[in-house]
Amino acid sequence: MMYSNIPSAQTLVLYFQSRGIKNIVISPGSRNAPLTLSFTKHPFFSCFSIVDERCAAFFALGIAQQLQEPVAVVCTSGSAMLNFYPAVAEAFYSDIPLVVVSADRPTDKIDIGDGQTIRQEHIFEKHIGYSANLKQDSTHGFEPVKSNDSQETIQAYNALEIGKALDYAFKTSSPVHINIPFEEPLYDLVENPTVELSEVQTMDGTHNLEADWSRLLPIWNSSQRKMVLIGVNPPEDLDAAIMELLANDESVLVFTETTSNVHHPNFFPSIDSIVAPIEKSSDRENLFKSLQPDLLVTLGGLIVSKKIKAFLRKYQPKHHWHIDSKKAYDTFYCLSEHITTHPNTFFGNGLGNFQKIESSYRNEWLQTKNNYELKRQAYLDKIAYSDFIVFHQIQSGIPKDYQVHLANSSTVRYNQLFPMDPSLHVYCNRGTSGIDGSTSTAIGASIYYNNPSLLITGDLSFFYDSNGLWNQYIRPDFRIILINNSGGGIFRILPGFEETKEFSTFFETSHQHKAKHLAQMFQFEYIKAGNEKEVELALKNFYEPSQKPKILEIFTPRQINNKILLSYFDFIS
Amino acid sequence: MMYSNIPSAQTLVLYFQSRGIKNIVISPGSRNAPLTLSFTKHPFFSCFSIVDERCAAFFALGIAQQLQEPVAVVCTSGSAMLNFYPAVAEAFYSDIPLVVVSADRPTDKIDIGDGQTIRQEHIFEKHIGYSANLKQDSTHGFEPVKSNDSQETIQAYNALEIGKALDYAFKTSSPVHINIPFEEPLYDLVENPTVELSEVQTMDGTHNLEADWSRLLPIWNSSQRKMVLIGVNPPEDLDAAIMELLANDESVLVFTETTSNVHHPNFFPSIDSIVAPIEKSSDRENLFKSLQPDLLVTLGGLIVSKKIKAFLRKYQPKHHWHIDSKKAYDTFYCLSEHITTHPNTFFGNGLGNFQKIESSYRNEWLQTKNNYELKRQAYLDKIAYSDFIVFHQIQSGIPKDYQVHLANSSTVRYNQLFPMDPSLHVYCNRGTSGIDGSTSTAIGASIYYNNPSLLITGDLSFFYDSNGLWNQYIRPDFRIILINNSGGGIFRILPGFEETKEFSTFFETSHQHKAKHLAQMFQFEYIKAGNEKEVELALKNFYEPSQKPKILEIFTPRQINNKILLSYFDFIS
Repeated sequence: MMYSNIPSAQTLVLYFQSRGIKNIVISPGSRNAPLTLSFTKHPFFSCFSIVDERCAAFFALGIAQQLQEPVAVVCTSGSAMLNFYPAVAEAFYSDIPLVVVSADRPTDKIDIGDGQTIRQEHIFEKHIGYSANLKQDSTHGFEPVKSNDSQETIQAYNALEIGKALDYAFKTSSPVHINIPFEEPLYDLVENPTVELSEVQTMDGTHNLEADWSRLLPIWNSSQRKMVLIGVNPPEDLDAAIMELLANDESVLVFTETTSNVHHPNFFPSIDSIVAPIEKSSDRENLFKSLQPDLLVTLGGLIVSKKIKAFLRKYQPKHHWHIDSKKAYDTFYCLSEHITTHPNTFFGNGLGNFQKIESSYRNEWLQTKNNYELKRQAYLDKIAYSDFIVFHQIQSGIPKDYQVHLANSSTVRYNQLFPMDPSLHVYCNRGTSGIDGSTSTAIGASIYYNNPSLLITGDLSFFYDSNGLWNQYIRPDFRIILINNSGGGIFRILPGFEETKEFSTFFETSHQHKAKHLAQMFQFEYIKAGNEKEVELALKNFYEPSQKPKILEIFTPRQINNKILLSYFDFIS
Repeated sequence: MMYSNIPSAQTLVLYFQSRGIKNIVISPGSRNAPLTLSFTKHPFFSCFSIVDERCAAFFALGIAQQLQEPVAVVCTSGSAMLNFYPAVAEAFYSDIPLVVVSADRPTDKIDIGDGQTIRQEHIFEKHIGYSANLKQDSTHGFEPVKSNDSQETIQAYNALEIGKALDYAFKTSSPVHINIPFEEPLYDLVENPTVELSEVQTMDGTHNLEADWSRLLPIWNSSQRKMVLIGVNPPEDLDAAIMELLANDESVLVFTETTSNVHHPNFFPSIDSIVAPIEKSSDRENLFKSLQPDLLVTLGGLIVSKKIKAFLRKYQPKHHWHIDSKKAYDTFYCLSEHITTHPNTFFGNGLGNFQKIESSYRNEWLQTKNNYELKRQAYLDKIAYSDFIVFHQIQSGIPKDYQVHLANSSTVRYNQLFPMDPSLHVYCNRGTSGIDGSTSTAIGASIYYNNPSLLITGDLSFFYDSNGLWNQYIRPDFRIILINNSGGGIFRILPGFEETKEFSTFFETSHQHKAKHLAQMFQFEYIKAGNEKEVELALKNFYEPSQKPKILEIFTPRQINNKILLSYFDFIS
């Protein structure tokens, strides 16, 4: 075991160890050498090396998402850290404790024309839980350090700031940033740390306030139409008893998304298949009114379905409660209650108090659901080979217990149209809904999972994050299914669609790229398919154990996908 | 010609036209549709489509660097814009007028759980000339807009802010940011704009203050040892008469870098070949004192050589003048004068006033220069195949008048060791010295150049920015030479070098990747070479006209490069 001889580097590493932050993703650099050396020479830490900082941060985010604990990502000074920002914003909105550590030049080297030097302090200010801007040690360095503070004062300040940042990451699941300036020489080592950890005051734990039952209970018990809408949610999070409570109350309609990881035959897993036909109906107004809840209860993170958002903003419920121990968004402009506890606590306490009331609310819509499920099957039987068919084929073929990552845009939206096996663990970067890091996130998330993982992605997302494959930690059981429709197929579904050169260049950004070359470069086994039969065949062996990870690239005809998707909603109406 | 029906989108497009901002780089998205439609349907604008925003911004930066005029890069809402940040920081420190335009959601959609929504206003605050945060129009939109302002007020405000931002970009060559919120529907068009441009007050021009000659002249005329140090500088920027003035004064020693684009037999183009041998000498102290200038005059942007910075910080001149119409960094902690004018103006006015004084300063060091030049040749004749040999081979073979882009780190440093043909136009992203966008910048910079372009890059930079090749605007005469030494060879030269697994994983990040697959994917002609003879052969036809752009990948043995480079400085000492 060796440590950098720089006190602040030692302090940081010792704190990480004491708080149990084991996983450290490191991008190469010289300014961060005191950290790289200290982390990699210490057996407590599991270190990962990723060159492209954009990928490194999403990879770390994937690990943190799965472990539900802070994971660090470390970079050198300069523009390197700016490449972390997309993942930081995703972590911020998805409540993932990504701990960003940036090595910096000493303050007196900033804005004097030195290389790899920018204004790093507070750089993520708008999307960060806490920014700790450490001070440079005065006991080390090539040039005398211009500081009025004693080393003891600096040491105490740095320890306090590191402690605060980590505390924030643990207690609020937010990303945090620690900026740490180092003067040269950067590579000197000592066998034992010269600093000691001091006790750091920690924040109070999460507030699990007791809900105000005298106010809430009468509302629950008198609402004929209660809608529970579940956003992004980790698997196996909600207690079975609570699911049964909700599933067996006729006045409760539970809308789930693929990313909710919640399943029950009485729930409604494909929101758009309910809402889209209403939008198209001549009896729209009455149908929406009969769907409009008296009470809306939301759980989990961000909602994928735009249709449900548009509907609930127009047909607002009388009451909207959001249950989450940290935060509540006023997504529908009618939030009446933020219940600051975990849904299990709230519903657990409610189990004995909630009264079932007679209501036709759920059963009427279950009828609609049964109806569209039959029609979906009929539609699948009649349409041509297309994205719609392919997503159905993929979803029916995923082996049990896989972790499934969905890229944003078309991928997550198509997946919402089909039922997902309840044993699957489903994730998608919905914090910012970016296409920028899905592959890296999925690879990071797969590292410690006790079953294989699958990424389903579109071509723009996949090529955007192609550096995600520049990663020596990809498990041989990692699988990628790439639906390549030669561009941003989603733009063909959006209102502005035109069959023009301008449109295909600047919206769809159509291209002829194939994953084959990347597969060779990054040593994936590569399989391709271009029609229904080939997809079926390819999926047969795709999940078999292999020496190398695999990419299955499925080509679909870009020009009919949009028509088939849009006609689907007509067909089930 | 068609315009979005959204007034703020029209205002922006009309202002861009009126100020002559022609080049618009667009990343795909729906929120920015009002801008994409208006720009692409207007014949005044040349639009480019680039999917990966990181590459799009560097590509735009490359165009702006060459044209020395503002170039816009446009993206959708959410994390998309965060991927612009590396290029924005580079533009900030390199004084390049990159105009970033981000489409945003309306204010009331932020932080309520909508997709692709982050806190966009002022996001680049720390590295931007001006941030214009436009207001949403009140005359358009699906939902009523909650605004207390009339459309006239909003319109006036937006026009003023756009005008200010553009003015700042033109007058200060800084990057600027315009954030523009749009509500749906986003795709509606009108044939004629509904808004009119108003007159916008513009800033005063650049201050070209008359230098205080009564104070400066005596210093110049009495300084026996004057050092002129030139950083990053555009080609053909300094007047010939001024070069002659400096070259023919024995008391003036002109240090240039490869990125200075300044050449004269009496100048010193390889700073490290002068300074490194002194560092190694037993007579170090005296030699440094005899190199120490009385007066240091700096021109241009950032300096690559770390050795000259370390030297001048320790052996400070009595006076340090920086000549630049915009800014002056106190790089050596002894800046005494910021002369706020162009060097041509300053030296032009000085031509009649500067007195030549007798001095042995320059001639003594010219002797040293002649000496190392001879020794360099002897060294080249005796060493094994390595990066050192390869960089020499490459530099001797570049055809006249090429634009040459150097990637950061090893590439730019090696190139400084060899003389560059004066007809070449040399660039490197030295603002932040990042490895993140060299390829994209070079491709952007080549677009309008009246001769072919060459990018010289290392493997980490090249693979980092591999999406730079995902670009349909690459000219068939574009050339890439990739020196692939299987990792970050520069780390083997830095002080912390160890021949261990940890080192090769976390510092050098050694890998086995080759560019061949990327070349196939992005339709480059691919040539490889693995020894001196093969390099020589490959270079013979490399610059011949071709149907497709070309990549020459040169493999060098990673484990001896550092020894050969470090021994070079011993050899010439």
